[in-house]
Amino acid sequence: MPIPTIKFYLREGLLPAGRLINQNQALYSEDHARRLRLIRALVEVGGLPLATVRRILHAVDDPDLPIHEALGVAQRALSPDLGAQGGPAVDEARVEVDRFLEEQGWQVAPDSPGRQELALALSTLRRLRWPDADTRLFTRYAKAADRLASVEVSRTTPPGSTRTETMERVVIGTVVFGAVFSALRRLSHERHSAARLGTGSRA
Amino acid sequence: MPIPTIKFYLREGLLPAGRLINQNQALYSEDHARRLRLIRALVEVGGLPLATVRRILHAVDDPDLPIHEALGVAQRALSPDLGAQGGPAVDEARVEVDRFLEEQGWQVAPDSPGRQELALALSTLRRLRWPDADTRLFTRYAKAADRLASVEVSRTTPPGSTRTETMERVVIGTVVFGAVFSALRRLSHERHSAARLGTGSRA
Repeated sequence: MPIPTIKFYLREGLLPAGRLINQNQALYSEDHARRLRLIRALVEVGGLPLATVRRILHAVDDPDLPIHEALGVAQRALSPDLGAQGGPAVDEARVEVDRFLEEQGWQVAPDSPGRQELALALSTLRRLRWPDADTRLFTRYAKAADRLASVEVSRTTPPGSTRTETMERVVIGTVVFGAVFSALRRLSHERHSAARLGTGSRA
Repeated sequence: MPIPTIKFYLREGLLPAGRLINQNQALYSEDHARRLRLIRALVEVGGLPLATVRRILHAVDDPDLPIHEALGVAQRALSPDLGAQGGPAVDEARVEVDRFLEEQGWQVAPDSPGRQELALALSTLRRLRWPDADTRLFTRYAKAADRLASVEVSRTTPPGSTRTETMERVVIGTVVFGAVFSALRRLSHERHSAARLGTGSRA
């Protein structure tokens, strides 16, 4: 990794300082290298802004934060910032989303950002006159997401892991496999569109 | 929608000018309203930068572009910009990704951006010492993505649709249901983590 990038992460407080061995050289440990690889994955594969990376790393590093709370902080940081979007149509959709999640039997915090994202998605579909825009459209996505996520959680939290290992694996898994799914979904759109709309030349 | 936002989209060339009825008033048609709703969905739900929205709208609006090419332009615009990331490890992973897609029987263009995204994801997992980092990790994601995408394509391209309708639906579907899946995946992580790491208080 280029030295200026390392210096930049140091200045941004994402990376602890190395041990100075003289005025011009600092020694970096394997922990530093590991942290650098993590930052790079979040920035390059996840496309996350540095402010988000910083929030995640603080949660990873804070030994006083119980792991489930730290995971909650990371989950919030990884959620898109919806800003001040809202209004009666979103509020109405939110009631339906909450009911949907309850029907699915999913126990999630009342203030989990995913709820509001789903409400915004639903009200957007309605505004766009999407046919049959209600939470039933989400069912197949919930099933697919849940099947993948349950395996992901069991793989990223094997018994005997340290808190830091678990946190890192969860964050990496969320970001990298989220990107993998998104790439595969677009590739699959391409192949099915080609079959349907006739694009022999692109395949 | 606030007037300044409309003026901003006009200035940015995302929205055609209305018909001037006097010096201070312009008339906007239902087509304008529809376009505004589309832009808002891409920006608010998809979090897309305006440059990306502009590229997509140009592809939607160019009547000389065959629909499968227009969809290709939109797909590229919706893909993350990987910049100059690469190197021997990514090249090596790319060969494996190409083989993986061939084994899946997916016919997609050799330069589809998803291929490179998967290669970057795989080489990142290896750098992070992820256990058993090879394309077999992608299999369950490919199955899930393909199941969802094949339904999405059949629903967004019903027979008898106009070119513009199809384009709009594909773009909306990719963005909004991508956000839906991502929100549901994070909510499902939360519920499975809670069950595993014991967080009765958050549920």
